[in-house]
Amino acid sequence: MPESLHAYRTHTCAALGAANVGETVRLSGWVHRKRDHGGVLFVDLRDHYGITQIVADSDSAALPVLEGLRLESVVTIDGEVKARDAATVNPNLSTGAIEVFARGVKVLSRAEELPLPVAGEQEYPEDIRLRYRFLDLRRETLHANIVTRTKIISDMRRRMEAAGFTEYSTPILTASSPEGARDFLVPSRIHAGKFYALPQAPQQYKQLLMVAGFDRYFQIAPCFRDEDPRADRLPGEFYQLDLEMSFVTQEEVWETMEPVIGGVFEAFAKGKPVTPVGSFPRIPYAKAMLDYGSDKPDLRNPIIIKDVTQHFVDSGFGIFAGIVAAGGTIRAIPAPGAGAGSRKFFDDMNNWARGEGYSGLGYINIKDGVPGGPIAKNHGEERTAELIAALGLGENDGVFFAAGKEEQAAKLAGLARTRVAEQLDLIDKDRFELCWIVDFPFYEWDEDNKKIEFSHNPFSMPQGGMEALTSQDPLTIKAYQYDLVCNGYEIASGSIRNENPETMVKAFEITGLTKADVEERFGGLYRAFQYGAPPHGGMAAGVDRIVMLLCGAQNLREITLFPMNQRAEDLLMGAPSPAEPKQLRELHIRVVEPPKG
Amino acid sequence: MPESLHAYRTHTCAALGAANVGETVRLSGWVHRKRDHGGVLFVDLRDHYGITQIVADSDSAALPVLEGLRLESVVTIDGEVKARDAATVNPNLSTGAIEVFARGVKVLSRAEELPLPVAGEQEYPEDIRLRYRFLDLRRETLHANIVTRTKIISDMRRRMEAAGFTEYSTPILTASSPEGARDFLVPSRIHAGKFYALPQAPQQYKQLLMVAGFDRYFQIAPCFRDEDPRADRLPGEFYQLDLEMSFVTQEEVWETMEPVIGGVFEAFAKGKPVTPVGSFPRIPYAKAMLDYGSDKPDLRNPIIIKDVTQHFVDSGFGIFAGIVAAGGTIRAIPAPGAGAGSRKFFDDMNNWARGEGYSGLGYINIKDGVPGGPIAKNHGEERTAELIAALGLGENDGVFFAAGKEEQAAKLAGLARTRVAEQLDLIDKDRFELCWIVDFPFYEWDEDNKKIEFSHNPFSMPQGGMEALTSQDPLTIKAYQYDLVCNGYEIASGSIRNENPETMVKAFEITGLTKADVEERFGGLYRAFQYGAPPHGGMAAGVDRIVMLLCGAQNLREITLFPMNQRAEDLLMGAPSPAEPKQLRELHIRVVEPPKG
Repeated sequence: MPESLHAYRTHTCAALGAANVGETVRLSGWVHRKRDHGGVLFVDLRDHYGITQIVADSDSAALPVLEGLRLESVVTIDGEVKARDAATVNPNLSTGAIEVFARGVKVLSRAEELPLPVAGEQEYPEDIRLRYRFLDLRRETLHANIVTRTKIISDMRRRMEAAGFTEYSTPILTASSPEGARDFLVPSRIHAGKFYALPQAPQQYKQLLMVAGFDRYFQIAPCFRDEDPRADRLPGEFYQLDLEMSFVTQEEVWETMEPVIGGVFEAFAKGKPVTPVGSFPRIPYAKAMLDYGSDKPDLRNPIIIKDVTQHFVDSGFGIFAGIVAAGGTIRAIPAPGAGAGSRKFFDDMNNWARGEGYSGLGYINIKDGVPGGPIAKNHGEERTAELIAALGLGENDGVFFAAGKEEQAAKLAGLARTRVAEQLDLIDKDRFELCWIVDFPFYEWDEDNKKIEFSHNPFSMPQGGMEALTSQDPLTIKAYQYDLVCNGYEIASGSIRNENPETMVKAFEITGLTKADVEERFGGLYRAFQYGAPPHGGMAAGVDRIVMLLCGAQNLREITLFPMNQRAEDLLMGAPSPAEPKQLRELHIRVVEPPKG
Repeated sequence: MPESLHAYRTHTCAALGAANVGETVRLSGWVHRKRDHGGVLFVDLRDHYGITQIVADSDSAALPVLEGLRLESVVTIDGEVKARDAATVNPNLSTGAIEVFARGVKVLSRAEELPLPVAGEQEYPEDIRLRYRFLDLRRETLHANIVTRTKIISDMRRRMEAAGFTEYSTPILTASSPEGARDFLVPSRIHAGKFYALPQAPQQYKQLLMVAGFDRYFQIAPCFRDEDPRADRLPGEFYQLDLEMSFVTQEEVWETMEPVIGGVFEAFAKGKPVTPVGSFPRIPYAKAMLDYGSDKPDLRNPIIIKDVTQHFVDSGFGIFAGIVAAGGTIRAIPAPGAGAGSRKFFDDMNNWARGEGYSGLGYINIKDGVPGGPIAKNHGEERTAELIAALGLGENDGVFFAAGKEEQAAKLAGLARTRVAEQLDLIDKDRFELCWIVDFPFYEWDEDNKKIEFSHNPFSMPQGGMEALTSQDPLTIKAYQYDLVCNGYEIASGSIRNENPETMVKAFEITGLTKADVEERFGGLYRAFQYGAPPHGGMAAGVDRIVMLLCGAQNLREITLFPMNQRAEDLLMGAPSPAEPKQLRELHIRVVEPPKG
């Protein structure tokens, strides 16, 4: 091969076009596909950037070499760029106007027989894909998803910096936090019997940064939670776009972050509509639970739930009348157009609700203006007409009813709202609907432990501050706490923090902890608040979730480079694995084998 | 306070200037300094962005409140911008043309008595600084260093992206690697008796990325080594600018990265000269060991070591003659101008060398053209004159001699070169001299274990490939392995990798490992190389070291947000700490208390 050229390539596999016809070039890449057209061999040569068609015929010394190679071998091709016949131009390929006639080939790396095909996108068992992740990652969709992921993260960084934020890295070997999920622990070699923990989130550090006088912090932060496998979370680590600001109100956080997150969505939505920046609805938690039966409403779903409790006071439909009399709630879930369909749809919904553990889902099906079903019958013609008018139902609509204690009725109504919309195909999947959920309750009742617990973040500021904590029923206190929701998924969560040490202690006391507990568990932060703490707040957005939504992927493993499997194993690198006895001795620990069963 | 203004600030503490005179403003920040000028109180109000002078006199309702506040309390000030008298304008402050006359003040957070002063830069004990890091970080130099660090990292990212690199995050919970330093281990809850490890570097993952068909990877990568405390490394974690490229030669890596690293230095050198991009010297390892006695030469030091072994064959100075006869080496370290000084300098150097464990450092001191000292005397007038001429020494120069086995002589010569230059003040501290050290030996002799070991990275490609491995004395084989050095510090290291599975096995076999060992220890990578691996190479630059050089800091803790102390403790967050018995049970481990002494 001529020595004057670069050792491996004059161009990438995406670079050549009609303008290069006649040039002598060198390309390197993987043998993606081979097609033998009777003495003429076509090879799709692939690299990170694209694909170029290589041609070799019996005039080419490269022919026998290429014929003998397995797919995915790596080669360097020397050849000439030729224009393709008009009939064979491929407009779907950036290099589709040309092909390279191979004069010579050098085999850089021979591939063994493949355990997993790269060309094509056929389904393959998860364990093979993870064990041979280096092959899996060559496949078109996964490769493209990973590149999109990197672009989204880079774009986030750029937007954050443009908004005046600075990226600070916080420690990964840190202290165990007794709140929240389970920590990963790291035994200390120098301090026998002591452990570091990997951060579940940089919450305390980012607040300390604000107290340290920095402002507008952000970080694409690795976070670690040792949780049992869940469909929507990979074992081990995940990434947050974490941020915090000083001297801000919650409105300022929303106004600052809406252009960043909305901007990212617009940039990567591939033309799908996105809620315009500046007009993300701000929905109070209580209203979200009423209208959508969820604090993560999918606003692509046009159905709005209505409270119809008052309609069933002393109703002829005794079950609902009884529930209302006992202080319960009735929520109506309209099902537009469903009345025109079969009764089976309504019965199936009812059965589904029973399958979910509820006592059932009542309904009225209106056909050509005539309300049907047991509720309509027992509720009475006049009151049913009033109800239908109040709900604004049409001549062939249906409506379901979720009844019970308020919380249960709201939750069932929310699930039914989603299911009705899915069944009736009411959701426009090709759009991104974003909204803020605000005014979350600060506390909730922990039925298991019969005590008051924080609903979300114990570091949040209660609305009304110390006065609210000392004078209000705790379960009525709202927090300066907010989520950002997209298409039914929580994609970010944040709050204005409680930076006042007395208020912080009081807030924890209501959950049964003492000042001493606060000092012991959150000593760094509590100490910091004694020495001049600015008001501050922020949020954290789930990078993986956002990437998944924008890639249209159904599984986090489809947007993650080297994920662990659902048993928290890295099949490629062989983690976790047994440690050497010397390592364990140095770490002052011993393995306790579980009892054999 | 007027409600129409932003709750906390209309401007930051760096924003106001002459153009704002007459405006009503609201500022928030920390009480940095207070000066009482008899009924008129001046307060320096500080935030992340700057300082604004606040004035309150007896007309101001703010006066008594501000008088009663401790430094570092956080306040909101409402007031009017006034021009300062010409005499009191402070040109060193961005807001130095104005002051804000306080009409009102709201105390947001009262500071307790400070354990550590913030204004001023007095030395303070390390443990107090780390325990109250949130106060320490408010201090001017540390605050500025941290901001510079974030800017350098952001600039690195920008330059890498501009050079066509893409940032990929690799896993942090991964497999233990049996090579290199000590791993931090993370016990698995799901797999009893098994452990994850935190990565010492993403070496294997970045190579897998190349095999997976990505190209031009980079990452600002957190790395973890459980090493004993060292002056130049913080315990626990550190950051690398890690990168890898496919289908490249080592020259291409240098040509790609020289503008990136050189560009970062130029951008943050504050006007100090930096070796121009495109002209970083490329010094072979062997030449570096000869000329500078080090593979991390400080090129600001003008002294060049010379080999003078041949001059001492059969010399009248019997010690050197004997060393040469026994196959040893004599290296000369010129000391320009030292001959004019006292003899004590030479004797002190000799004593220093003995203190370092060497047998001594011979010398010739030339005073007004007359060579003095025992070596000159015994070596003979004529041969001494020849030697002096060969070394190009002047009338009042000195020269030291390091003698012994080649490796020892080179090392002593290198240490002496540094010390001579420091003592004679020959080093221009206000510049950055960068160079590549190339052609490192692939193997070295491990005297402790009486075997051949890898000099650096076992994943590097030996120059000459399989042929060199099978035909050459292993200790003569060079690697495609290189370092980037600045001012005597290694700031980056890299290589072209060995991506051929047979060559990889052969390279390990020479160190006494078998194919089975390679499969067991590096299974992921070894397996990957069977399925089409591109030639690839890269490097990793030490972010912390580069920041330290550019900040002119003497200690890594001065450029790190929340460092651990030298006992690997986080005094702010209280890590490491004992774990709950329940946590240990879940992790299937038990603490083994060390024997009490």
